[in-house]
Amino acid sequence: MRTYRLAVLGFGNVGQGFAQILKEQGALLAQRFGAQFSIVAVSDLQKGSVYNPDGLDPATLLAAIQTKGNFDDVRAPQRGWDALVTIAKSNADIVIELTYTDLRTGEPALTHLRAALQNGKHVVTTNKGPIALAFPELDQMARSKNLEIGVEGTVMSGTPVIRIGREMLVAAGIKRIQGIFNGTTNFILTQMETGASYAAALADAQAKGYAEADPVGDVEGYDAAGKVVILSNLLMDAPLTMTEVDRVGITQLDAQQIAQAQAAGECWKLLGTIEKVNGQVRASVRPTRVPLRHPLAAVKGATNAIVYTTELLGDVTVVGPGAGRRETGFALVCDLLAIHRKLRG
Amino acid sequence: MRTYRLAVLGFGNVGQGFAQILKEQGALLAQRFGAQFSIVAVSDLQKGSVYNPDGLDPATLLAAIQTKGNFDDVRAPQRGWDALVTIAKSNADIVIELTYTDLRTGEPALTHLRAALQNGKHVVTTNKGPIALAFPELDQMARSKNLEIGVEGTVMSGTPVIRIGREMLVAAGIKRIQGIFNGTTNFILTQMETGASYAAALADAQAKGYAEADPVGDVEGYDAAGKVVILSNLLMDAPLTMTEVDRVGITQLDAQQIAQAQAAGECWKLLGTIEKVNGQVRASVRPTRVPLRHPLAAVKGATNAIVYTTELLGDVTVVGPGAGRRETGFALVCDLLAIHRKLRG
Repeated sequence: MRTYRLAVLGFGNVGQGFAQILKEQGALLAQRFGAQFSIVAVSDLQKGSVYNPDGLDPATLLAAIQTKGNFDDVRAPQRGWDALVTIAKSNADIVIELTYTDLRTGEPALTHLRAALQNGKHVVTTNKGPIALAFPELDQMARSKNLEIGVEGTVMSGTPVIRIGREMLVAAGIKRIQGIFNGTTNFILTQMETGASYAAALADAQAKGYAEADPVGDVEGYDAAGKVVILSNLLMDAPLTMTEVDRVGITQLDAQQIAQAQAAGECWKLLGTIEKVNGQVRASVRPTRVPLRHPLAAVKGATNAIVYTTELLGDVTVVGPGAGRRETGFALVCDLLAIHRKLRG
Repeated sequence: MRTYRLAVLGFGNVGQGFAQILKEQGALLAQRFGAQFSIVAVSDLQKGSVYNPDGLDPATLLAAIQTKGNFDDVRAPQRGWDALVTIAKSNADIVIELTYTDLRTGEPALTHLRAALQNGKHVVTTNKGPIALAFPELDQMARSKNLEIGVEGTVMSGTPVIRIGREMLVAAGIKRIQGIFNGTTNFILTQMETGASYAAALADAQAKGYAEADPVGDVEGYDAAGKVVILSNLLMDAPLTMTEVDRVGITQLDAQQIAQAQAAGECWKLLGTIEKVNGQVRASVRPTRVPLRHPLAAVKGATNAIVYTTELLGDVTVVGPGAGRRETGFALVCDLLAIHRKLRG
């Protein structure tokens, strides 16, 4: 049995989903994989910070949030450390970065990840910002110190498409990646197929919690573009940046265009595509009409999907959840188990 | 760079597909993964046997088969070793078992795999027979000697569904596995949807090389049942045997039933299912009507697919090739890279 001490930065939905998994499945993971994951520190700007070098009980953390919304009543030998102090002073082996996403600056997560690697700690994150903006730099830093970076949760939540790509399909020669990488816009397009207007479908997505109050990151394709940049960096050896993605959102699609596609036996999808053309990598996010027989046409609602086109296997498609508290929490488990496999040898 | 010496037993389609991959991609694999795979021995009942402790050139092996159909003209310090002598006397680290499939006895592959493990060699195989019939015994033997067994190619050829299941999704709690595990029958059902009779569709499958002259293994569901047994053993901790799979083939389906399904907005698929019901695992292979919106309905022709239903992620679907020379050859690469990751640490 090997124990890994974790410092969790940010304790919102994903952090709580992760704590829930450790609470419910921790014993099972230990039994099956020989790995024990112990949260020693949580640092959250709103909810407060607690540190116990011997571990904090996930059930206690969750109960505190549920009853009081903060960690004021959680007993811990050390309190009040901010993220950078937690990284520097805690005894964690692995830093789990779950603060909010900023696709323009990557902050504050980028600073946290750099600090963690400088302090000799592995990092795991579900935060697209720093990975879309600075993966080559972070990867270089991690390699030079023999540390791991887990980023499974940055694309399609816990559906392990990044690891499938990096550990398996990359050896089959990935020529092209195409997929539905944003659940909100796919939900809106699915609703519009049943006759809803764009405005009504968006309102529905907001009511269901899929879309934010300011939906621009989703509907203009920025979120999908961030994922395209991550996939091109990690799987196609192409260090593209956000501005190099040819990006069009779904806000110009109207009921008539939806109906025209349906009449032609097709449907609209917001597709992200990365493709090698004459040795150059091109990337785009744009609404695309796909035939109903196309494997991506059957992907409805908030579900996501990816098609890897490879030299040796042809097309391999993976369909799975693109969001969700437990689903994204599971991405962290996936990355932690991969670190365990690596360190255990 | 780490070098792995391979003994290949059986040099039919899959062995040749594998040699082709090493010939074309060997340098790339070495560069990207730091692993060099060197075939030191090939032993085939019809084509002959050659052994060179320093390695045999895949291009030379392939050229010999293409020009003469055997290894008579291949220069090698040692010739004529049968499979068991090759296992015992070669300097191979890994035995690759690719002899013919027998789902009743598992032989001769079962004897080869046991001998390889007894001789302290890792094994990789695409042969369903011994894995469906004796996985618990082989797994036990491998664990006791700290050896690896790679079986990726036994289900869905090189589409890495076993590894996705074992390394990733098992931690999400697999409750149910359902899929299209036989390409021949899926091709026949797809042809019947366009109006072909069962007999004509079968003849077409035979002409295209999907179905054997004696198609009973495919059309009566034995092949799919073998895969169901493998998946239940490896992914659901349920050591089912072939006779415990409730198995019905597709030979009783007629044009009228196909048309009735179509009229109801459904289609017929030969589905393999493994499910936990009240703590018991039940397994079946049977023709099933699925709605056209179901993710498996879009899987046409010789393509295969699997749906993992999990506690933490809900449904995760993987669609990919189920057969093919290069595709199954790639399964071996997948397993070899996994052994490399493990040994390298």
